[in-house]
Amino acid sequence: MTEQKNLVSNTRKLAQLIVDSKFQIDELNVAKKCFVDYLASAYVSRNEPAVKRLFDTLKNAGPAKLLGQAGTASSDHAALFNGFAAHYNDFDDVQANFRGHPSVVIYSALLALADGTESADRFFEAYIVGVEIAGQIGFQVNPTHKLSGYHTTATLGTIAAAASLPFFKRFSLGQTIDILSFAATQAAGLGIEAGTDTKPMHAGLAAQRAVQSYQFVSSQLTTNQDVFNNQTGWVKIVVGQELDLDLIESTWLTPAQIITPGIWFKRHQFCSAAMSGYDAIKQGYLQGINIKNIKQVIFHFRPFGDKVLRYKQPLNGQEGKFSIEYIAWQILTFGDVNDELFDSSVSTEKFQEMSYLFKRVNDLKNIAVDQREILVEFVRTDKSINTIYIDWPQGSPQNPLTMDEIYVKLAHALSIDENELFDILTAGLTSKSVAGLLNIIARI
Amino acid sequence: MTEQKNLVSNTRKLAQLIVDSKFQIDELNVAKKCFVDYLASAYVSRNEPAVKRLFDTLKNAGPAKLLGQAGTASSDHAALFNGFAAHYNDFDDVQANFRGHPSVVIYSALLALADGTESADRFFEAYIVGVEIAGQIGFQVNPTHKLSGYHTTATLGTIAAAASLPFFKRFSLGQTIDILSFAATQAAGLGIEAGTDTKPMHAGLAAQRAVQSYQFVSSQLTTNQDVFNNQTGWVKIVVGQELDLDLIESTWLTPAQIITPGIWFKRHQFCSAAMSGYDAIKQGYLQGINIKNIKQVIFHFRPFGDKVLRYKQPLNGQEGKFSIEYIAWQILTFGDVNDELFDSSVSTEKFQEMSYLFKRVNDLKNIAVDQREILVEFVRTDKSINTIYIDWPQGSPQNPLTMDEIYVKLAHALSIDENELFDILTAGLTSKSVAGLLNIIARI
Repeated sequence: MTEQKNLVSNTRKLAQLIVDSKFQIDELNVAKKCFVDYLASAYVSRNEPAVKRLFDTLKNAGPAKLLGQAGTASSDHAALFNGFAAHYNDFDDVQANFRGHPSVVIYSALLALADGTESADRFFEAYIVGVEIAGQIGFQVNPTHKLSGYHTTATLGTIAAAASLPFFKRFSLGQTIDILSFAATQAAGLGIEAGTDTKPMHAGLAAQRAVQSYQFVSSQLTTNQDVFNNQTGWVKIVVGQELDLDLIESTWLTPAQIITPGIWFKRHQFCSAAMSGYDAIKQGYLQGINIKNIKQVIFHFRPFGDKVLRYKQPLNGQEGKFSIEYIAWQILTFGDVNDELFDSSVSTEKFQEMSYLFKRVNDLKNIAVDQREILVEFVRTDKSINTIYIDWPQGSPQNPLTMDEIYVKLAHALSIDENELFDILTAGLTSKSVAGLLNIIARI
Repeated sequence: MTEQKNLVSNTRKLAQLIVDSKFQIDELNVAKKCFVDYLASAYVSRNEPAVKRLFDTLKNAGPAKLLGQAGTASSDHAALFNGFAAHYNDFDDVQANFRGHPSVVIYSALLALADGTESADRFFEAYIVGVEIAGQIGFQVNPTHKLSGYHTTATLGTIAAAASLPFFKRFSLGQTIDILSFAATQAAGLGIEAGTDTKPMHAGLAAQRAVQSYQFVSSQLTTNQDVFNNQTGWVKIVVGQELDLDLIESTWLTPAQIITPGIWFKRHQFCSAAMSGYDAIKQGYLQGINIKNIKQVIFHFRPFGDKVLRYKQPLNGQEGKFSIEYIAWQILTFGDVNDELFDSSVSTEKFQEMSYLFKRVNDLKNIAVDQREILVEFVRTDKSINTIYIDWPQGSPQNPLTMDEIYVKLAHALSIDENELFDILTAGLTSKSVAGLLNIIARI
């Protein structure tokens, strides 16, 4: 028995897990939230000049819809465009083990191949499968893989998006192995592209490669049958370590990666690493602290807890997405952040005059890897001190946004009436087939 | 002066070399041979079932021609298809420093974007630039990069094909940097796909990514400006070593990589590592040695010199492409190899009955890395012994095929009259614009 088990390759085991997956209702509910959040992230970028220019380059007479644009493209070009647009403002969801953005890669691939006749449940289940792969492999290869210089949304994202497709299209075990092989051999993307248009492009390219993998397998092209083997396979060659398939088998969907560590949703267009700080400063503001009565703000992080917040002195709004100081200054000055102040063309001169107010120290103890704790110390001009501690900010899996809040996020992205949108979304999300989901896109 | 030089990034230096490139007439002549050889490699595969199926998947109403097929596609899909078809039978050219196949990636990208108005010299010069990049970076990163599990035609091939495009299209220095950045962040492909349809697909994908890089830069998307930096750039992250730009600067096109170590052309559809052995056995046959009067054939290689010839007992014709024994058996039995016997569906049963005749030893001394020497010892049934030594076989850079011989290769691939083809090729290759080259494709 043991001997026979050893004969089954890593890739076949993984494909079997995908094919046999079973789901829970709460997983489907989170997947639906992710879908609406994905639409919000795509539509909020629909008028960005870079998005418009890419649309002009890619639009053609293909069958697939380009979100937020009056045009279509071939399936793989649609996946590319939608992934790019949905990740353009970094407004989309995040998963901690993946250390990447699941919806922009997986939903862009699924949507590009959906013809409407498929079961809506199957569509969302396929998404859950993609998140599961990203989280399971991500748990094993991160943080090494990310810290060694790869962009996980690009690399693991390709594999995750590709893995969702054979489940969605009810492909065989063999075809699932082939899709994984095509995807892994093409999984690529460097971390140094962060801060350029190539970062969101990585999300689009990951979705495109997934769609291509599906097309190649549909063309019956052959592949290596064990792309996750631990001698010459993807994890070994690219990450330099082995993949433990027994661990994946014993934890597959129990609990699902979409539930634990779960999905983070954003309310504003800044890096998720600043979400706890945002909540703390906002609470401080509501307690009467503002730019006129503050002498110093000290941010306490755990060691390296502020690593991703790489700009203490951002030079434009886009860098400000990664600056807790810039976010705090906005709240203390205006009462809240303004998404328009995160645009790359926005000067941060007025912030810089006040930046002497802010200070960081890294003296908190390490807690769970997926938790983002902060303690903010407010020293007022009257020398009184307030401290506010946040571990699970609003939008984190332990303090999630409600579906209604994500509906509002989409309504704002579309600048349309919330009540009208609620009717469209509710009708679409209760439809039994993917046609209902496509109908949402057709109507907004 | 030194200080200022240090401020110029690796990627900017490389882009400057590309932009400033100057060429010699003998380089252009080899580039033209490569082009005709590329067409032969693509057309010989035009009726392969896998090629036909991929054509059915990709064909659409785009502007670019699919070689050997009655149909067109978008530029990036054409690059993908043509790269796949041209590499499908492994009949295409090879460069030793690159350790990969230059024409299937570079010409597939150039052709996909050619509108015919461009200068023909510029087209061939752009090809030489692509070979230069592949050879220069390949010289530094190989054999580490290839042996660590990557498929160099896929990885370095993406960068090479992309680098040729800004030169061809007379892009600016800045745009050249952007194209290199897009290409390097997407360069991917695992060695384990060898022996499957995914290996030729890698060539197509490399060409496609190059075309996409060109399109993204045309859409003015932004990129990281030093993708070849030695801390977080492609060579450091993926290969794990540093790139020496001073070495590249001091050897750029002096001599050109297309001349030294030069290009290998194939006469038959088997691995280039068997070319010396083919010549030796063929000479033996012409000296009267054949399957009826031979007792033993001993192949003497240098250590690891036969590593790529991985099948001593191939089970089908496709494996036989990588078997010196299978090749020798064909020549000694039939007087020459027959390309049809290298098909994946061909049984090698008759060969296997005679395979006891063949033996390998690795007792030659190491010479130059790009040389493929063999000594074949023929022991006849009458106990007399002949030995034949080959270091530079026909088709190697030191014993090159003539343009006429490559014309014949294309004529055979097309199954058309050689004289008619000679007229078409001569007219096309002497044209001043790319329209002449496109006219060759339109007429064959």
